[in-house]
Amino acid sequence: MIKAGIIGSAGYTAGELIRILVNHPQVAIDFVYSTSSAGKPVHAIHQDLVGETDILFSDKIHQDVDVVFLCLGHGNSKKFLEDNSFSKNTKIIDLSTDFRNKEEKHSFVYGLPELNRKNIEKANFIANPGCFATAINLALLPLAYAGLLKEDVHVNAVTGATGAGTSFSATTHFAWRDNNFSAYKAFEHQHLSEIGQSVQQLQEGFDHKINFIPNRGNFSRGIHCTAYTFFEGVLEDANGMYKRFYATAPFTHIVEEELHLKQVVNTNKCLIRLQKFDDKILITSVIDNLLKGASGQAVQNMNLMFGLEESLGLKLKANYF
Amino acid sequence: MIKAGIIGSAGYTAGELIRILVNHPQVAIDFVYSTSSAGKPVHAIHQDLVGETDILFSDKIHQDVDVVFLCLGHGNSKKFLEDNSFSKNTKIIDLSTDFRNKEEKHSFVYGLPELNRKNIEKANFIANPGCFATAINLALLPLAYAGLLKEDVHVNAVTGATGAGTSFSATTHFAWRDNNFSAYKAFEHQHLSEIGQSVQQLQEGFDHKINFIPNRGNFSRGIHCTAYTFFEGVLEDANGMYKRFYATAPFTHIVEEELHLKQVVNTNKCLIRLQKFDDKILITSVIDNLLKGASGQAVQNMNLMFGLEESLGLKLKANYF
Amino acid sequence: MIKAGIIGSAGYTAGELIRILVNHPQVAIDFVYSTSSAGKPVHAIHQDLVGETDILFSDKIHQDVDVVFLCLGHGNSKKFLEDNSFSKNTKIIDLSTDFRNKEEKHSFVYGLPELNRKNIEKANFIANPGCFATAINLALLPLAYAGLLKEDVHVNAVTGATGAGTSFSATTHFAWRDNNFSAYKAFEHQHLSEIGQSVQQLQEGFDHKINFIPNRGNFSRGIHCTAYTFFEGVLEDANGMYKRFYATAPFTHIVEEELHLKQVVNTNKCLIRLQKFDDKILITSVIDNLLKGASGQAVQNMNLMFGLEESLGLKLKANYF
Amino acid sequence: MIKAGIIGSAGYTAGELIRILVNHPQVAIDFVYSTSSAGKPVHAIHQDLVGETDILFSDKIHQDVDVVFLCLGHGNSKKFLEDNSFSKNTKIIDLSTDFRNKEEKHSFVYGLPELNRKNIEKANFIANPGCFATAINLALLPLAYAGLLKEDVHVNAVTGATGAGTSFSATTHFAWRDNNFSAYKAFEHQHLSEIGQSVQQLQEGFDHKINFIPNRGNFSRGIHCTAYTFFEGVLEDANGMYKRFYATAPFTHIVEEELHLKQVVNTNKCLIRLQKFDDKILITSVIDNLLKGASGQAVQNMNLMFGLEESLGLKLKANYF
Repeated sequence: MIKAGIIGSAGYTAGELIRILVNHPQVAIDFVYSTSSAGKPVHAIHQDLVGETDILFSDKIHQDVDVVFLCLGHGNSKKFLEDNSFSKNTKIIDLSTDFRNKEEKHSFVYGLPELNRKNIEKANFIANPGCFATAINLALLPLAYAGLLKEDVHVNAVTGATGAGTSFSATTHFAWRDNNFSAYKAFEHQHLSEIGQSVQQLQEGFDHKINFIPNRGNFSRGIHCTAYTFFEGVLEDANGMYKRFYATAPFTHIVEEELHLKQVVNTNKCLIRLQKFDDKILITSVIDNLLKGASGQAVQNMNLMFGLEESLGLKLKANYF
Repeated sequence: MIKAGIIGSAGYTAGELIRILVNHPQVAIDFVYSTSSAGKPVHAIHQDLVGETDILFSDKIHQDVDVVFLCLGHGNSKKFLEDNSFSKNTKIIDLSTDFRNKEEKHSFVYGLPELNRKNIEKANFIANPGCFATAINLALLPLAYAGLLKEDVHVNAVTGATGAGTSFSATTHFAWRDNNFSAYKAFEHQHLSEIGQSVQQLQEGFDHKINFIPNRGNFSRGIHCTAYTFFEGVLEDANGMYKRFYATAPFTHIVEEELHLKQVVNTNKCLIRLQKFDDKILITSVIDNLLKGASGQAVQNMNLMFGLEESLGLKLKANYF
Repeated sequence: MIKAGIIGSAGYTAGELIRILVNHPQVAIDFVYSTSSAGKPVHAIHQDLVGETDILFSDKIHQDVDVVFLCLGHGNSKKFLEDNSFSKNTKIIDLSTDFRNKEEKHSFVYGLPELNRKNIEKANFIANPGCFATAINLALLPLAYAGLLKEDVHVNAVTGATGAGTSFSATTHFAWRDNNFSAYKAFEHQHLSEIGQSVQQLQEGFDHKINFIPNRGNFSRGIHCTAYTFFEGVLEDANGMYKRFYATAPFTHIVEEELHLKQVVNTNKCLIRLQKFDDKILITSVIDNLLKGASGQAVQNMNLMFGLEESLGLKLKANYF
Repeated sequence: MIKAGIIGSAGYTAGELIRILVNHPQVAIDFVYSTSSAGKPVHAIHQDLVGETDILFSDKIHQDVDVVFLCLGHGNSKKFLEDNSFSKNTKIIDLSTDFRNKEEKHSFVYGLPELNRKNIEKANFIANPGCFATAINLALLPLAYAGLLKEDVHVNAVTGATGAGTSFSATTHFAWRDNNFSAYKAFEHQHLSEIGQSVQQLQEGFDHKINFIPNRGNFSRGIHCTAYTFFEGVLEDANGMYKRFYATAPFTHIVEEELHLKQVVNTNKCLIRLQKFDDKILITSVIDNLLKGASGQAVQNMNLMFGLEESLGLKLKANYF
């Protein structure tokens, strides 16, 4: 059994991670670190876990666990690793933005299995991708791989309230968000850099703009993304190209019918649909922001790092309705 | 024109009050008091008011306004009136619980027009009823008036997220409340005392239990209430009794079809339906918690206090969908 | 008093129209035409109208009313007017797509007051704009007026469930739509032609693409629209240009803060925000699809046609929460 | 491997059943019967199943499957079994109301494991309980078992839109149900008879009223139920009694904190909380109507009938947010 430790335990991604790991056949949760909740059962915070596990939050870290997941706010992972150390054999999966930038000097591999599976298998340190970045990258990478991103890309995506984290803000109050919709951080979202980096990894020299407008949707989970750009080929070619690119990906599938978000909510899947209009290709992708966009992908990376079946413990029932 | 001042300006009830008063043909808003937002436009907080009014928050109170609305948290109205004074002619309408208890020594009239219209017309000080209390009182008062509350009453009601106020709490975070439901303060809600007091005003000696379970619904506005108790008569009698009791009430109507909450959302109305099962009468009532349950009723009281048509400025379009 | 008749009475737009007209100080509803519901009270269908009006559906049309609103499905208005006639003085406001195309031979004026106020005032027949078309036109017209739409425009908009009409479909079932999101009719929405037509009216020779992706949101009312295109000027210029263009428009306002949909829900307003990024201008616009996008705008047109104040009966309280 | 057939394949309960069975380690789906969709992939209807299974709907029934699940509308199971037959060894689990009444002559066991585990293990035919009945029975049975239901019981429960089935109705249209709430079938819900029957099985001679008001909530999944009645003991006794009664139940747990619906949504669990007020006990219970209230419980019954671990294939990740 893989002994796992979790740092940063009260947020959505930690909760999801625990939900997955309590049923994962090859993982034993060793500790869930929290100084403020130490001694309380984990289900005091993640209240659906009643009856699933009686594990308690702990203020002790065991340095010799096999894997540590860092579910900390952006900026805090780096700091945490400066202040704490683990055994040489401990693998680290960081869910923050801290180690996603390849330019910086560190040994973290960007943990998007569809892009970096081989390297992830050999990695000790993983920078788990951002949620928007996952949805957008999966929409664009087959085109980049074929060198076909030849003009600007136009992306519009909407995320649920869990995307904003558990902290309170005007836009996460139910009375504000219920039946509401708003755009934010247009053209300036922080995930644009990791998207650009991934695209350039496959299509060297790519220098077009990725115009991205993120939106706040009035739902709890999920990201729905549409992206379009210039494309000369026919739809059949595009479908074939995408299907080949994702042929070995257990969670990413190309469909040929209209997509909707709830097809993937509460699963680790990404569904992608392609359409052709005049000289444009439209790519629609949907993921669950907390699973494929965060904790599910983290476990997918863990599976790869430990030589397990990539989908182990991740065959999750969609809630669908 | 009636010069109106508003104290406690950032909450839901203040916002609703301003929304109503900017279109009220007999009212001019004199000041909206806020020390923290002084100088900012009111639409910086109540953002739908863009294009409706350019009034600014002010940190000055004018003592000679005709009416003051206190939209303060419970406990703060009393304190505010100890620290501040108004002209002898200024009428005060308090939306908090501070002056609802008749036992205490004060000169506030309980502002439920269907119960106290005559006294409201002559009053200078009004204690505006609570939202649950309004929905439940309007469901029960005709029976009390007829002396027919002869056994315990069983009440279940659900309120929207605005019922919890603008402050943040675990249960008002969108990701928690979305698609959720929960009971709270069962048998112990603070409105029970004002309900009991109103029932006893009409049915002296009433000493049965009013068993009340409040619930948090995953909607923004409104209260849906079901109440049942022993009743020997036939449905026709009950309908007649209720219709007579509310014959002069411009906002409270008896209907004979199935009710739903959105029939009244964004209006000042209360709709009531009666049904008979064996020896029981079931009364369903629906109101908008922020209008008939708060700011709308406050303006209704103001209209009565100033000798205006009771419904002036309160013929609000339901949003319905 | 203006005598008004309403044709096509069970849908959302008819309901909204009646909700507005029952409180309009210069209108008396003469008939609400329905063969299937004749004799029933209008509030049997539009159930929030209990206590507002006791008018009955009628299967009789009075030819001499002052104004007729056609709230019929697309294609049915033309047919209705072939089969029925009104007095010479009766003005007709059609809410369908049937007469929006200027190329076709008819005497209907496209009823977007911000574009055609003078012609509307003189018109006898109005083609009321589509909801998406209203939101998108109001976002683009000031640029077109200045001749500054120099490249393709990229539009993404989301509409609520009422946008799909009252008829049942897979995507309007609550269990499907709740917490869901999906794109549809990308690049091919039927409103594109009336948008192009309006833009060309102000910027002759405009021949760039308007790339438009509509989406289904999980809310009931409203349209949120983002549009961006090439723009060389600075933000101040753009704001000035838009404010001048809408200087006389009582419902369309430019704001300089982040926008959200609920600022306009249940009102006849359109709020617009401009932002500048590199060489692009981003325009965000929000409307209520049933009011400014349908029935509210229809009444606004009526007010103009009858020489009334443009906003008469349309100062609606937002529900906001 | 257990060969399973599913009859009645387009509804919510069939969808959930397939979602569970595709990941169940001891089940192979043999056929999903549909005459109208024969030949289409199951994921054409249950669209989240893309990537999970490529099984097709079939218009052929195999008589020799090990288990058949009937996911038919009420009244249709009986009819189906009159028109079709299975092998002697085929076990049948019916999700309709058709065989829940013990008075009628049939050999179906009422499939509530917490009540009838031993009989279910030996049964060949199971009448799977109703969703409201499951939530209410689990709230009341420990009291009945102790003979302590001594007065009338007052129950109020709210169900999601999936409770109404996939067929369209006014109350399942998104624009109606969104942010809405309504009571229906008060005191007359069809599940009352199976509740009474279960209570009487444990507390012979029980003849008090179970007053039950069901409500339509504006969420997709789940049932939240409050029930109260006279109870003389102290809370500790009640908690002990309930914990003992459910000591061997893998999915039903007693908690001592405030409950909310989303603790169980997308799981097969039932959580129960007890509170004491004066001479009353208040029991709150929450379940997912499609899982513990339908398809999950059906699989739980199957596990028991085939001697498998009761929770096999049912350790489902809550979506929680």
